Amino acid sequence: MMLIVGERINTSRKEIREAVEKKDAAFIFNSAKRQVDSGARFVDVNCGTNVDTELDDLIWMIKTIQKDEAIPLCVDSPNVEVIKEALKIVKGKAMINSITAEKARYENILPFLRESDADIIALTMDEKGMPNTKEERFELATIIMEICQEYGISKDRLYFDPLVRPVATEQNQAVEVLGSIKMMADLNLKTIMGLSNISYGLPNRRLINRTFLSMSCASGLSGCIIDPLDMNMMSAVRASEAIIGNDEYAMRYITAFRENKLTV
Amino acid sequence: MMLIVGERINTSRKEIREAVEKKDAAFIFNSAKRQVDSGARFVDVNCGTNVDTELDDLIWMIKTIQKDEAIPLCVDSPNVEVIKEALKIVKGKAMINSITAEKARYENILPFLRESDADIIALTMDEKGMPNTKEERFELATIIMEICQEYGISKDRLYFDPLVRPVATEQNQAVEVLGSIKMMADLNLKTIMGLSNISYGLPNRRLINRTFLSMSCASGLSGCIIDPLDMNMMSAVRASEAIIGNDEYAMRYITAFRENKLTV
Repeated sequence: MMLIVGERINTSRKEIREAVEKKDAAFIFNSAKRQVDSGARFVDVNCGTNVDTELDDLIWMIKTIQKDEAIPLCVDSPNVEVIKEALKIVKGKAMINSITAEKARYENILPFLRESDADIIALTMDEKGMPNTKEERFELATIIMEICQEYGISKDRLYFDPLVRPVATEQNQAVEVLGSIKMMADLNLKTIMGLSNISYGLPNRRLINRTFLSMSCASGLSGCIIDPLDMNMMSAVRASEAIIGNDEYAMRYITAFRENKLTV
Repeated sequence: MMLIVGERINTSRKEIREAVEKKDAAFIFNSAKRQVDSGARFVDVNCGTNVDTELDDLIWMIKTIQKDEAIPLCVDSPNVEVIKEALKIVKGKAMINSITAEKARYENILPFLRESDADIIALTMDEKGMPNTKEERFELATIIMEICQEYGISKDRLYFDPLVRPVATEQNQAVEVLGSIKMMADLNLKTIMGLSNISYGLPNRRLINRTFLSMSCASGLSGCIIDPLDMNMMSAVRASEAIIGNDEYAMRYITAFRENKLTV
């Protein structure tokens, strides 16, 4: 079953930025709740655009969302110190976004993650930057897996993000990413992706994003960071899983249909 | 570029059956014309449900559609005698649907096809029936390719149909078909599929069909037999080709967007 991380609570989005400024707890809580109700396993929380107040804002978000119940969160920050501090107050099973093969980054956070049971998104990149080929992506994933093993962190907690880039400027990148997902899936390594980068620079981006989701699902993608309120996207997820046989008797697909949650 | 065969002119569809009964030439001609205008490279013509009058009806269709110009046709019949007779009157470059690895069938038609330049859809099946695995599909394709070579028919004219079956009853079949497309594409064998079988028995079939089209495109599918007037399906085709780099600078995708031919 595709693991869905709900991407809506990000201060790069205007309505979230404003809700954080106004400390509109109901708005943030409801945004989290609706994503879970729509199928998100984790709700991503990201205040990365609020550079000066990131940690304070993130802690307020987490406490707001988990006030009454341990809604599962994905703590998302470019700053590993922020992730560590935020993770200390998160209730229940969490996910973090992200680690990389950059030594300064993983040396800082892996000893801390060893003591937690959080799932971990690992970007397939290192000090030299982003990978180009499927083989480079796969190699970075195996390097990260081995480093994590040294720190006592099982590969079962890792979701590798192959880092898709805009197809408008690099037409071979989607094929490389799909190939890398297949290579990782063949070795039972889990993969996850945000999808929106692929459509950067093209019109009608959501069509590109959900089409790429379906292709990725067929290549063996384990999880995706998406907007679970996007009915077209969720329809693509449900249809894809039914097709590749990851939805026994197509029950989730048929249930979604009965609840009027599928596009025609 | 994905080769599109327009599937609308088939007497299994009520409006076509009625148009044939009434000899409504304008209706049939317009249906062909609109499919070409929407991106079909060939227009499929199929009167297979009219068992007693199939050849006469097909000849009337062909003459009707090609009255003024050689609109490219795909002559579609379960009966190779009908295909041979119909092909004699088709103008311009044609396609035929279909041959198989069944000896009685190919021995009848291949000598005739050698004298034509028609492209050929070859179903990956033989006297023993339909294949189950990707390897069986691939093997049947190579057998057909070798038989055609013996008859002097180049593999460049062949499009292999891996024969997808309903995922509602056989949940592994889509994955096998996708795998077989990849195996054939890796050897530069062309593939083509009708998509609608996959969704038989499921609700909201068009969603399943176009999602499977996107997956198949990523696996290397060369052509598809679809309704080019289905805007959702054509959007999936255009988006898929842009993503996998089969649409240079995404020009066809962007053009379709500018012409309001893409779904949001």
